[in-house]
Amino acid sequence: MTPSWLSQPITPLDDAARQRAHAHQQQLTKPPGSLGRLETLAEWLAARQGTQRPAADRVAITIFAADHGLASEGTSAFPQAVTGEMVKNFAHGGAAINVLARELYAKLEVVNLGTLDDPGPLPGVIDARLGSGTTNALYRAAMTTEQLQAALASGRCAVARAKDKGSQLFIGGDMGIGNTASATACACALLGLPADALTGPGTGLDPAGVARKAALIQRALDKHRCTLTGPLEILRHLGGFEIAALVGSYITCAQHGLPVLVDGFITSTAALLAVHIQPGTRDWLLFCHRSAEPGHARILDALDAEPLLDLGLRLGEGSGAASAVPLLRLACALHNNMATFADADVSGGDTR
Amino acid sequence: MTPSWLSQPITPLDDAARQRAHAHQQQLTKPPGSLGRLETLAEWLAARQGTQRPAADRVAITIFAADHGLASEGTSAFPQAVTGEMVKNFAHGGAAINVLARELYAKLEVVNLGTLDDPGPLPGVIDARLGSGTTNALYRAAMTTEQLQAALASGRCAVARAKDKGSQLFIGGDMGIGNTASATACACALLGLPADALTGPGTGLDPAGVARKAALIQRALDKHRCTLTGPLEILRHLGGFEIAALVGSYITCAQHGLPVLVDGFITSTAALLAVHIQPGTRDWLLFCHRSAEPGHARILDALDAEPLLDLGLRLGEGSGAASAVPLLRLACALHNNMATFADADVSGGDTR
Repeated sequence: MTPSWLSQPITPLDDAARQRAHAHQQQLTKPPGSLGRLETLAEWLAARQGTQRPAADRVAITIFAADHGLASEGTSAFPQAVTGEMVKNFAHGGAAINVLARELYAKLEVVNLGTLDDPGPLPGVIDARLGSGTTNALYRAAMTTEQLQAALASGRCAVARAKDKGSQLFIGGDMGIGNTASATACACALLGLPADALTGPGTGLDPAGVARKAALIQRALDKHRCTLTGPLEILRHLGGFEIAALVGSYITCAQHGLPVLVDGFITSTAALLAVHIQPGTRDWLLFCHRSAEPGHARILDALDAEPLLDLGLRLGEGSGAASAVPLLRLACALHNNMATFADADVSGGDTR
Repeated sequence: MTPSWLSQPITPLDDAARQRAHAHQQQLTKPPGSLGRLETLAEWLAARQGTQRPAADRVAITIFAADHGLASEGTSAFPQAVTGEMVKNFAHGGAAINVLARELYAKLEVVNLGTLDDPGPLPGVIDARLGSGTTNALYRAAMTTEQLQAALASGRCAVARAKDKGSQLFIGGDMGIGNTASATACACALLGLPADALTGPGTGLDPAGVARKAALIQRALDKHRCTLTGPLEILRHLGGFEIAALVGSYITCAQHGLPVLVDGFITSTAALLAVHIQPGTRDWLLFCHRSAEPGHARILDALDAEPLLDLGLRLGEGSGAASAVPLLRLACALHNNMATFADADVSGGDTR
């Protein structure tokens, strides 16, 4: 029942390349370590790209979109129709991630895994609908086994396309009204926490709305408690199609040696699921921003992740990951293009 | 004795433009506030550029370089000769800020206010030497009144050049072996703190080196205690030529309506001095990064500043400010180019 590809081996890191990159950093005309994470980012990439000249030029962004059965209970500040409307907005280039992708010269595609209504053919949108959203997890598993496998495989295919295009970094984004509720349920089940420990406002609920959302998530957790026997069953019962696709994409990236820039709350939950399924996936994930969604901090802690940015973002769509791309590019440029002490005839220092 | 231009009025902010920018943000296809500081950054720029379409394309970077008399006591991990060597490195394009400026298509210039030795003519370096570094502040005021006025005026001239080039943002950077000691002394005097409250490792002192540096700074503070009657006298007795030039540049930017991206420890101390001289200067300063230098936190608190980035940088040269430029550009692109709910026919939300 578990797709066999999930257990294929993860690409090992190139520690020799990382060490060479680290040694090179010590030769550049600055006090050692004074560029902080701009130094370690370059070394991180070097270990994954197997090179002394890391690069972050070619970025692939895939937005996975789907609706959520649980959202029909009113877990979001926005109506479910917005998922499909935003898919159209992506197709027409008007969403935040479109603007960011254009600024970054990144390749953007959208995979529709199951909006409530079929929007019909749209430019730049791949139709991979597995139904009109997931089933309401208050009453049944959100997905069938076949839907879960198809959603995971959709993520895998997106990474194959990214590799074919020569991408150096992969960003998965999420769009799905109600998906903070589904992600929260998955994270609570993985971490053994009650719903109110992780539930937050998502796109903008008030405190009463958050309390109602937490109660619904707790009911879903209680309903399926006996069948949540591992990460894949947690994902199937409580997750969403787009969350499953993100999980499949992250594991595939780690298998194919493509570094991942992880976005916010939904994608970090997908990362947590992926790491529970295949622990080696963690090595290929760079966490890009700390979401304003309060539960994100617990998920980041569980992943031992210290994100690059903390700007109060809570949009999804991969927007926080995209916002960190310029930092990686600057890190590579500094690493590759600064003069060494020897080149520039600059004296070194001591520490006394 | 105080240059009369220091008290010229500060350009007021355009609050109507800020309000229009804020109203526009509420119409974009995202939950209100979900882009966090990328929204408020665009509004911040709009209020200062007096426009609904803020821009961060044209950036001027001026590095002010000078040596410090106090450094002859051994307050730095690097020899004083490095200041001049790094000025040459800037001229030849090999330093971190050169790489960053190229990546950002920013205009970079260097002003030599007084390296220990005269490096002779260098491309891209303006010779404004006021001496072979400042006087050792353990024994006398670091600068004469004439030197202070000339250094402040050098900062003012740099801003005039930036304005002439049509710059939309100004970054001042610092280069000067020993300048964390001078800046720490100034900040302690301004904030009424003992030296050990703010002294840190700078470019890389070990704990014993930090303790020795703190003792030297305390001696300088004690020596001049009776004459430190205000920010200009603090700057003159304890500061450096490049710190004074930064102060002059920040006040001039606020007078001429050019937003400033403030870098790390040295430049934040210059900002604190500038705000003590002309409080309205604060409105024109955007703090870009939290330095690894531990005293920076106290200075940021005194300025009520929450920097954009926290990446462990501690290089100076304007490098942390330059690293934040892409975030401002993304903020402007999102603000100017996203679709509105009406354009994209996307439903709005409520908060329940």
